[in-house]
Amino acid sequence: MSSHLLLVACPDAPGLIHGITGIVYRHQGNIVSNSEFVDQETAQFFMRTEYKGPSDPVAVSREVKALLPKTAHVRCADMEPRRIVVLATKEHHCLGDLLLRHAHGEINANILAVISNHETLGDLVRQFGLPFHFVDHAHKNRPDHENAILGLLEPYRPEYLVLAKYMRILTPGFITRFPYRIINIHHSFLPAFIGASPYRQAFERGVKLVGATAHFVTDDLDTGPIIAQDVIPVRHTHGAKDMAQAGRDVEKVVLAKALGLVLEERVFLCGNRTIIFD
Amino acid sequence: MSSHLLLVACPDAPGLIHGITGIVYRHQGNIVSNSEFVDQETAQFFMRTEYKGPSDPVAVSREVKALLPKTAHVRCADMEPRRIVVLATKEHHCLGDLLLRHAHGEINANILAVISNHETLGDLVRQFGLPFHFVDHAHKNRPDHENAILGLLEPYRPEYLVLAKYMRILTPGFITRFPYRIINIHHSFLPAFIGASPYRQAFERGVKLVGATAHFVTDDLDTGPIIAQDVIPVRHTHGAKDMAQAGRDVEKVVLAKALGLVLEERVFLCGNRTIIFD
Amino acid sequence: MSSHLLLVACPDAPGLIHGITGIVYRHQGNIVSNSEFVDQETAQFFMRTEYKGPSDPVAVSREVKALLPKTAHVRCADMEPRRIVVLATKEHHCLGDLLLRHAHGEINANILAVISNHETLGDLVRQFGLPFHFVDHAHKNRPDHENAILGLLEPYRPEYLVLAKYMRILTPGFITRFPYRIINIHHSFLPAFIGASPYRQAFERGVKLVGATAHFVTDDLDTGPIIAQDVIPVRHTHGAKDMAQAGRDVEKVVLAKALGLVLEERVFLCGNRTIIFD
Amino acid sequence: MSSHLLLVACPDAPGLIHGITGIVYRHQGNIVSNSEFVDQETAQFFMRTEYKGPSDPVAVSREVKALLPKTAHVRCADMEPRRIVVLATKEHHCLGDLLLRHAHGEINANILAVISNHETLGDLVRQFGLPFHFVDHAHKNRPDHENAILGLLEPYRPEYLVLAKYMRILTPGFITRFPYRIINIHHSFLPAFIGASPYRQAFERGVKLVGATAHFVTDDLDTGPIIAQDVIPVRHTHGAKDMAQAGRDVEKVVLAKALGLVLEERVFLCGNRTIIFD
Repeated sequence: MSSHLLLVACPDAPGLIHGITGIVYRHQGNIVSNSEFVDQETAQFFMRTEYKGPSDPVAVSREVKALLPKTAHVRCADMEPRRIVVLATKEHHCLGDLLLRHAHGEINANILAVISNHETLGDLVRQFGLPFHFVDHAHKNRPDHENAILGLLEPYRPEYLVLAKYMRILTPGFITRFPYRIINIHHSFLPAFIGASPYRQAFERGVKLVGATAHFVTDDLDTGPIIAQDVIPVRHTHGAKDMAQAGRDVEKVVLAKALGLVLEERVFLCGNRTIIFD
Repeated sequence: MSSHLLLVACPDAPGLIHGITGIVYRHQGNIVSNSEFVDQETAQFFMRTEYKGPSDPVAVSREVKALLPKTAHVRCADMEPRRIVVLATKEHHCLGDLLLRHAHGEINANILAVISNHETLGDLVRQFGLPFHFVDHAHKNRPDHENAILGLLEPYRPEYLVLAKYMRILTPGFITRFPYRIINIHHSFLPAFIGASPYRQAFERGVKLVGATAHFVTDDLDTGPIIAQDVIPVRHTHGAKDMAQAGRDVEKVVLAKALGLVLEERVFLCGNRTIIFD
Repeated sequence: MSSHLLLVACPDAPGLIHGITGIVYRHQGNIVSNSEFVDQETAQFFMRTEYKGPSDPVAVSREVKALLPKTAHVRCADMEPRRIVVLATKEHHCLGDLLLRHAHGEINANILAVISNHETLGDLVRQFGLPFHFVDHAHKNRPDHENAILGLLEPYRPEYLVLAKYMRILTPGFITRFPYRIINIHHSFLPAFIGASPYRQAFERGVKLVGATAHFVTDDLDTGPIIAQDVIPVRHTHGAKDMAQAGRDVEKVVLAKALGLVLEERVFLCGNRTIIFD
Repeated sequence: MSSHLLLVACPDAPGLIHGITGIVYRHQGNIVSNSEFVDQETAQFFMRTEYKGPSDPVAVSREVKALLPKTAHVRCADMEPRRIVVLATKEHHCLGDLLLRHAHGEINANILAVISNHETLGDLVRQFGLPFHFVDHAHKNRPDHENAILGLLEPYRPEYLVLAKYMRILTPGFITRFPYRIINIHHSFLPAFIGASPYRQAFERGVKLVGATAHFVTDDLDTGPIIAQDVIPVRHTHGAKDMAQAGRDVEKVVLAKALGLVLEERVFLCGNRTIIFD
């Protein structure tokens, strides 16, 4: 008896749960966990159904689609490891943490390769036995650089891209090829700081908490739907360098958490917000 | 269109969600939020359904019961404020916080009265305009003391008792009258300390976190199902007195959180564990 | 043997600790706790010395001043309760928490009175037996309103003003009368939201943490030196109203923490940052 | 101008700070950070002085010792990376995190080697280019096994041993060779669970927080002085396996934090408690 996931998002209407679970039932699926939420702002219905059974997910999915309006999003997913490519620049902390977790079976994904615009992290990636692709951005305009990356990505057919401190801004043209399938991590502070040297700004402001936000990448830079956030305390004894270390520590934790939620298909989009069935 | 809650706990079986939501649907209920969980250890099914509609909750409840085995727990609750009596002893922090929240509509309950085995907190209660009953335990054996309390409780017909630092051990005879309807708060530490002067012990052990646990009271003292827990950091500069203050600060937060979850009917029992649909 | 606090801030120079503690020593003071920090950015020296002894704090302070450059800040404080006036508007949570703590000896301060631009909280204050002054802002320009408040404040000679959700912007003219002696609490989010309806904005952005920042009030609205910050997690199930409740819960905790640090003279100013010897 | 650390622990007496900082001053040391604490229970004095200057630390240390009673602990340390050997068993998470931090300069230590009673982690260690020693415990009694480890340790002359989930109990004979120089990490829960399968026990008890404690190893197993603690929240949806993952996540964070504090000489012992100048 294998496990299946049925994921539904559509406008709310009476009887949806009854109707959808009826299809699962008729396919002899036994529901292990069912989470449902109706957003009161948009009257959108979201449901994540984890069930066990002999059923054919394609057939289940087709019947559910037939039941719902055309605008509904319906997906019947297995729980196989997802195909992932990681993009990074020079910082090791998020990438290293993902590589360790991947090597020891802590994330439900296959990291297929790491692509970087610097050579700095090549040794780290190769020591874990994974392909490392260096795509220099020097002497290339942005579209050319992104095209070179897209060319490398193509054979891997990644389901998700993880930006593990990839410090180049992606163009809308690139992003639209992976709609809500690019996950980014960046620092965040209370209050927020915009522009260069955020840790410097945070230090000068004397913040007592350093935070990190993991989110989907959309055209609006750093403002896509938030998946996970956390903070760690800092003190006046922390210089700007210590605050950067604190930032690294919280960033790797938040990225790993967000990625886990995405890989288990626990994250739904609701406008610019996320519904998270954890 | 009023709001209703349907709460179900029973042995798992295929088709339960489909069947139960079908009843809600036929009663023209529109489901706002549905949480379901099957405990893999015990194969128990838990569901909390929040729906809006003209339906008669008694009829819905009756039909759901008819659908399920006799051992099923089925309850169709409204979302009216619950009837509560608070028991306290001498410490003000949890009681005061509850009184403030109650006075300003932050908890979905009517605090009907406060009962204490000391007179210390009488003024605090009366200044909030609530009845305060002093039941001295001096010169009374435990059953007599509890009987005096039970006599006072009777006219209030409380749905829940909240032990806001009530420092007397309740007998099984008392507890069985309010099965899983008594909520207690107590300190907790990493590692745990048993016996007298826990803050003193924690101080001597040099703990870096002070915690609190809110739980249902069962015959097993301080080991009933946990509803909420939290911790706050302490430092070597905190003496035993400061640690007690830290304990008060975290206790009142955890008790308020646990009570909120219970009052919104978000807490289900699963053996000695809780399922919390928050 | 009474307890004393010696507080020093001045440009760093070799031998400062040796020189200052020598004065304490010659006055037969026995140091219980000494915290010192040199800010590497500004080369400013900060020291908080808690000592016990028969010594005359005025004499100690005079000798320390004589040792240091004219720009040095030197203060020899006792540990008596500070004189405080609280300003509030309509929200009860921070004020209520302070009143409860005050009534039960949890803060080292005398709350002398509460002033508000609304009558809403009058009953809450009076039930704790404290004076409540209503200063209507209707039909008054800002300076007139502030002058009315200043007139009320005068006889109380407060050492600190606590803005417990006082929702009027204070003018520089008012603020300069209480330099770094006004403590404010406000919400804060990751990322930050500016302008009206911050909880609404935070809800729409789908934040996973709701935060609060307590800070000294300076001319730069909401950007004075930060004293304390904290966050609490929220979920997609939290509507805008629930997020406001979460905000209240974290605000009262952070304000109480910040006030405790200030009242124990643990907070030093270093430009727009704080040095906190906790 | 190099940096130095002066660390003093001795019975409290008047004039200690004055006297000790006078020695630093006469050696032309400029104090950057000075933390001092007198434990009121034991009347023990603790001081950590970070200073810059041309001074000869041996001479400073000798003069400070001459000033203090014979029982005083005085140490003048440089801030060079400490010599470390890590012991592990089969679990990768703490070891992997330390190896990553070490490889990227995040901890002030040289990890000289890793010793394990299993071969499981050999590849992980070797991929970071470090020596891995497998010391099988099969067919060896405990003293023989420990002697084999001691033989391997000898040429490394480690200043600290880090038990990164080393799952063998060390004998008092082994521990006394590294007094307060062995750092261990273990799970901890609210409430605590003793004996086998703690995550199983915690799951059955329905805890809402999973914690970790890093401590010095003493003869009393798992009860040596605590250096750092933290917790992460768990939910009813976390099975025993998910709770073990949560445990791994918090353990690696707490061990790294504790190790950082020890390596920066911020941890003092006070009976079975720690004084931490962070």
